[in-house]
Amino acid sequence: MKIIHLGIGKVGKTLVDQILKNKEVIRRTLGIYLIYSGLFNSKGGIFSDSGIDIRDVTKFPGNAVIVDYDKVISFLDENYIIVDTTASSETYGFLDLALKKSCYVAVSNKKPLCGNFNHFKRLVQKSERRFFYETTVGAGLPVIRTLMDLILTGDKIVQIQGCFSGTLGYIFSEIERGIAFSEAVKKAYELGYTEPDPRDDLSGLDVARKALILVRTMGRKTHLDEIKLTSLYPKQMEKLSVNDFFESLKNLDPVFQKRTVSAGKKGKTLRYVVTMDSESCRVGIEEVEKSSNLGSLKGPDNLIVFKTERYLANPLIIKGPGAGIGVTAAGVFADILEAAKLM
Amino acid sequence: MKIIHLGIGKVGKTLVDQILKNKEVIRRTLGIYLIYSGLFNSKGGIFSDSGIDIRDVTKFPGNAVIVDYDKVISFLDENYIIVDTTASSETYGFLDLALKKSCYVAVSNKKPLCGNFNHFKRLVQKSERRFFYETTVGAGLPVIRTLMDLILTGDKIVQIQGCFSGTLGYIFSEIERGIAFSEAVKKAYELGYTEPDPRDDLSGLDVARKALILVRTMGRKTHLDEIKLTSLYPKQMEKLSVNDFFESLKNLDPVFQKRTVSAGKKGKTLRYVVTMDSESCRVGIEEVEKSSNLGSLKGPDNLIVFKTERYLANPLIIKGPGAGIGVTAAGVFADILEAAKLM
Repeated sequence: MKIIHLGIGKVGKTLVDQILKNKEVIRRTLGIYLIYSGLFNSKGGIFSDSGIDIRDVTKFPGNAVIVDYDKVISFLDENYIIVDTTASSETYGFLDLALKKSCYVAVSNKKPLCGNFNHFKRLVQKSERRFFYETTVGAGLPVIRTLMDLILTGDKIVQIQGCFSGTLGYIFSEIERGIAFSEAVKKAYELGYTEPDPRDDLSGLDVARKALILVRTMGRKTHLDEIKLTSLYPKQMEKLSVNDFFESLKNLDPVFQKRTVSAGKKGKTLRYVVTMDSESCRVGIEEVEKSSNLGSLKGPDNLIVFKTERYLANPLIIKGPGAGIGVTAAGVFADILEAAKLM
Repeated sequence: MKIIHLGIGKVGKTLVDQILKNKEVIRRTLGIYLIYSGLFNSKGGIFSDSGIDIRDVTKFPGNAVIVDYDKVISFLDENYIIVDTTASSETYGFLDLALKKSCYVAVSNKKPLCGNFNHFKRLVQKSERRFFYETTVGAGLPVIRTLMDLILTGDKIVQIQGCFSGTLGYIFSEIERGIAFSEAVKKAYELGYTEPDPRDDLSGLDVARKALILVRTMGRKTHLDEIKLTSLYPKQMEKLSVNDFFESLKNLDPVFQKRTVSAGKKGKTLRYVVTMDSESCRVGIEEVEKSSNLGSLKGPDNLIVFKTERYLANPLIIKGPGAGIGVTAAGVFADILEAAKLM
């Protein structure tokens, strides 16, 4: 299997490292030969049909000769897998073209799945056996595949609930401990848990994208703006500088405190939750029983609860870190191996 | 894909039902054609290379003409999957032969994997991509596959802990509520949670088999008698009649009560747990923190905690019903589809 890899950020670099370290074991145990044929970032990349030099892979871009996608296209066939670990919405065209040329595709990039519904359909539904996107929800946790297995074996989804943001998980754990909302956000920021602009997390948009991918995987023709998304801050705080944003966060503290106390009186606690059933999908703060699976979640762990016809009284639950460089890269790696087995 | 199915017990019948109900959807969405070619119990079976009559499948054995395995062997090739939902240790020979003839195999039957280590090796390791056994541990929960993905992507297992018996989970939940051990066993028996002879559960042997399958999947050449197994009753109770066994269970109540109280004083609770690390594997009662994942487990749910190099501070956890007719059948069905995708 020949790999062309787009995106050499933190996850990308770690994936390169994991593949190079384990390719011999893979060859011995599974009989799968992994050949690194291309490595691209937004500026272009290096490519060789027969495999690129290992030193060029680990040092890219280094002083390698840079080529663009067009140079690669004529080589693509069913022996190739395209791996997308970027966070770009620009890769869709290349991925679609690669599938048309019978390539396999594995992505940790959510964007190509969250735009135009027909794009999702072309990538996932029309090529179900060649497109892999397990890491787009919950990183290395087996979420998408579990959902697909439930559906394909004829189970009916009654409800899916989940916490899909480690950052927001951390913040709500702090709030539960009695820390003010603004303080919790600041602490998460200082620990490097949030994006440089914490609004990227607090808007809930990233969680909504994950919800959308689950909803679409369930077969529903939903668009991002149809997900009922409640942000953690009011719209008027969108245009502030990051510093001013932090300052005005304090105004929200009483609101969060009141909601926390009110929930506590009912034996409940607040979580930032995705909830979807057969009709609707919403993303926002929910009051959940403290003793429930979601309520007993601590810190940055992700959790997903599948309530189905078969898993009704006792749902199927998956829990663990849903972000992080090593586990995300490993999840993409597992997808690559999955594809390789199909070749 | 042509299916030959061994074992028409409760799980087997439900699997037949699930496949017949969903084969049209599978054909539409995955392009996979499922053909039911054979159905066998210990007395023999019905078979037709081109597919057997749907009425014969649902009514087997009915008044169909019964054939034996030998009649089938010459037909076997890479288009066949052999499905083993029996609980027999006698099927190994047929499964091994089928793999040699390039068939695929999916089993919920633990026995062929728990005897001779070379049998395990031949079934699983020498034909890794054609042998599926997800349901042997945790039924429909994605346990084996998650373990394989971790190992193949280069993660290192630090510790695996799990509760793999719904029956014993129920009993220990009752004990935690203050119910006497003998009462809890009796209640489980009356609810149909235990085998007809409850010693089949209380011996821990079924849990030890699951532990063995995990240990062997991790690549270790272990035999069943090398697992440190602690039964819930002393050896001298083995030969009693079921009624006498129930009677003498009461003698154990003070022991369990003492252990429960002693654990409680340390903020702990008792669970029947599999614990394995890089060197050892034990199955027996453990004191676990009440607030831990294992400690907060309630009732008949199974739970597995993967602590690995990548999932260390926050382990990867899977929880849910690890037994039951519908979820076990669906797990085998998912394995069949997995195999079908490889064809």
